[in-house]
Amino acid sequence: MKVELISIGDELLIGQTVNTNASWIGEQLAERGLLVHLSTTIRDVENDIIQSIDAGIKRSDVVIITGGLGPTKDDITKKTLCKYFESEQELNREVLERVEFFFESREKEMLEVNVQQAYLPKKALVLNNLVGTASGMWFEKDGKVVISLPGVPYEMKDILLREGFPMLLEKFSVKELYSKTIYLQVIGEAFLADRLAELENQLAAKEVKLAYLPSTGMLRLRFNGKKSDEVVFEIKKSIELIKKEIPVHFYAEYNISLSEVLGKELVHQKKTLATIESCTGGAIAKEIVRIPGSSAYFQGSVVSYNEVVKQNLVHVNEDTIIEYGVVSEEVVKEMAEKGKELLNVDYCVSTTGVAGPDSDGINKVGLIWIGIATNKRTFAKRFHFGNDRERNIQSAVLTALNMLRCELFEIKT
Amino acid sequence: MKVELISIGDELLIGQTVNTNASWIGEQLAERGLLVHLSTTIRDVENDIIQSIDAGIKRSDVVIITGGLGPTKDDITKKTLCKYFESEQELNREVLERVEFFFESREKEMLEVNVQQAYLPKKALVLNNLVGTASGMWFEKDGKVVISLPGVPYEMKDILLREGFPMLLEKFSVKELYSKTIYLQVIGEAFLADRLAELENQLAAKEVKLAYLPSTGMLRLRFNGKKSDEVVFEIKKSIELIKKEIPVHFYAEYNISLSEVLGKELVHQKKTLATIESCTGGAIAKEIVRIPGSSAYFQGSVVSYNEVVKQNLVHVNEDTIIEYGVVSEEVVKEMAEKGKELLNVDYCVSTTGVAGPDSDGINKVGLIWIGIATNKRTFAKRFHFGNDRERNIQSAVLTALNMLRCELFEIKT
Repeated sequence: MKVELISIGDELLIGQTVNTNASWIGEQLAERGLLVHLSTTIRDVENDIIQSIDAGIKRSDVVIITGGLGPTKDDITKKTLCKYFESEQELNREVLERVEFFFESREKEMLEVNVQQAYLPKKALVLNNLVGTASGMWFEKDGKVVISLPGVPYEMKDILLREGFPMLLEKFSVKELYSKTIYLQVIGEAFLADRLAELENQLAAKEVKLAYLPSTGMLRLRFNGKKSDEVVFEIKKSIELIKKEIPVHFYAEYNISLSEVLGKELVHQKKTLATIESCTGGAIAKEIVRIPGSSAYFQGSVVSYNEVVKQNLVHVNEDTIIEYGVVSEEVVKEMAEKGKELLNVDYCVSTTGVAGPDSDGINKVGLIWIGIATNKRTFAKRFHFGNDRERNIQSAVLTALNMLRCELFEIKT
Repeated sequence: MKVELISIGDELLIGQTVNTNASWIGEQLAERGLLVHLSTTIRDVENDIIQSIDAGIKRSDVVIITGGLGPTKDDITKKTLCKYFESEQELNREVLERVEFFFESREKEMLEVNVQQAYLPKKALVLNNLVGTASGMWFEKDGKVVISLPGVPYEMKDILLREGFPMLLEKFSVKELYSKTIYLQVIGEAFLADRLAELENQLAAKEVKLAYLPSTGMLRLRFNGKKSDEVVFEIKKSIELIKKEIPVHFYAEYNISLSEVLGKELVHQKKTLATIESCTGGAIAKEIVRIPGSSAYFQGSVVSYNEVVKQNLVHVNEDTIIEYGVVSEEVVKEMAEKGKELLNVDYCVSTTGVAGPDSDGINKVGLIWIGIATNKRTFAKRFHFGNDRERNIQSAVLTALNMLRCELFEIKT
């Protein structure tokens, strides 16, 4: 069974609005075992709309259209659908009453253009809009279904969740999909692809697809296959295998951030945390504080961007800086240790390095030391990220949080 | 001239990734006077890719493809393009050297799959990727252009900005647009739309369009019209008017961040800066440090997330906290003043408030005080943002930076 999406609206094509409707519908359908095979964004132009619907009906079983149902002049989807399906419009009294009530309850005046929204094509089933004034429509032709929905996200979602999806699932009985995504902290996807090559071949033999979805410092791995006991077993087994093989990188099997994983564990262990940041400039603290409830474990941070601040506020010995240089294992460890005392915490994370784009004259751009002081030990690691300042900072943030995660969960690195 | 986009990737269709590439390219092309008339998202399936390219070449002058150029198995775009254009691949030594250098400089092992990325179709012009390993490709057929780009946003953007867009503009001479964007720091766009209503009508009469492009704490205003002396004059005049009318909000007429504007001015005035952050948790420091060269003026920060840290490290009087509460004008001012001394700077910005989602039991969610201490005075302002934690933090960051900008430039608020 093939589903395709058509999003109507100039604002989507010229980038004034990001098309989150298409991704939401795609995700919701995938969860129901229905895969979108094509998604098209077109202008508010009659000819383009007609061509797209016609092509859609020929190649897909279901065509879901969003946009162009508002009361203004540039909204021509309903009129165009009537033309394509050769259907007249008639006043739908039930819809009119709802639109009238919509305006009454908001103490707003109802205009003639709003009355027009209660005129609907005779050949369509009405999909009721309980949160707005533009009704959804369900057309059928040669066993194919065309659904038209308003582009306002919460109206579109409400109509699909309440009426559209259940009706689709009833009309087409399809084989369900099984999909799982795991979350890894990792710099560079290639080394992982290499490491998982064998597993990937095994999965391919069972018709399970593996997708790599990278972002800076992160990688999501998605498993996808037609639902069967065998496929579910294979996917679960593979995830267990990866978990065991690379526990240093694997941090979640559902959608949760690294800072949230840490937060939960710190609360669980009743431990506290602080950061002393140089090259990351508060970015680790920011990522920790982003999580609601972080005040339970996060005490604070000193951003010792300047060398003098490192000495005066964090009390790093001037001698250490002179002897080893400010970007060094010795300094980053002393930062973590002194920070742990200063902020009176169980764990203190520290950073020092060259974020770029210019070198400090001594060290290469992208060279960053990360240190951790705990109640048991102090240690540090050296990393070499890339040339882009913001990506280096983001990579250092996620790498530092991941080092702390390994320490908290006692994972050997 | 017709441009269309093809985005390749299952992850886009099933909604795991929102297609921001398409909206970015659409926006950039619109600014250059080229309008996207169609945007299609398809699967990583050879047949679908070939059909889309073939249909694209028939109906459009330029087809821009993103995605599917990575080193992993699910990336089949290059192979498929070679098939469609009947082109063999050959090793491009220059690209290979760059890929090798890419791995060397990051002290990472280069794998066979990465070597493969230096094999490119004979019939394509190479669009150099200077920030990653997947090259862009430029094909021509029957006077039409097909551009293939990696799906990683920063790689795609870098290639288009440096090589793709200039080459397109040179190849196709279209009626030029004149477009200007101005940058405002503002919470809520509605009050501004109201204030600019008259101006907007005047511009409409000259066929100049005004687009509101809001994001958290920010608003971009884009003026767009067919290039003529009159249109250029109208747009420039309007910008001068807005600059004079709302100097508190207007901060730039080219793409520069508020923190960059501040950085330039601090360097110019030879002044230094620090932050003492509570509810923003290091987010202001992070935004300042994001800017290359910030070490010239930024000394550091104390994130006094915990009350005890406010007292012990920042030396805010316990009495002030007890008498006025931690979220108060008195505390935020004392934080700024004590921070100014502690970090020995000319300007110190401070924050305290309730980011949410839970109230502190005393103050409403979204209530945030921002303080500034300078060599002349200390002052603070009270803000009430919304209910969303991350948006509240982001709003507070930009509002704080804007308050400092007004102080630096002596703009009356």
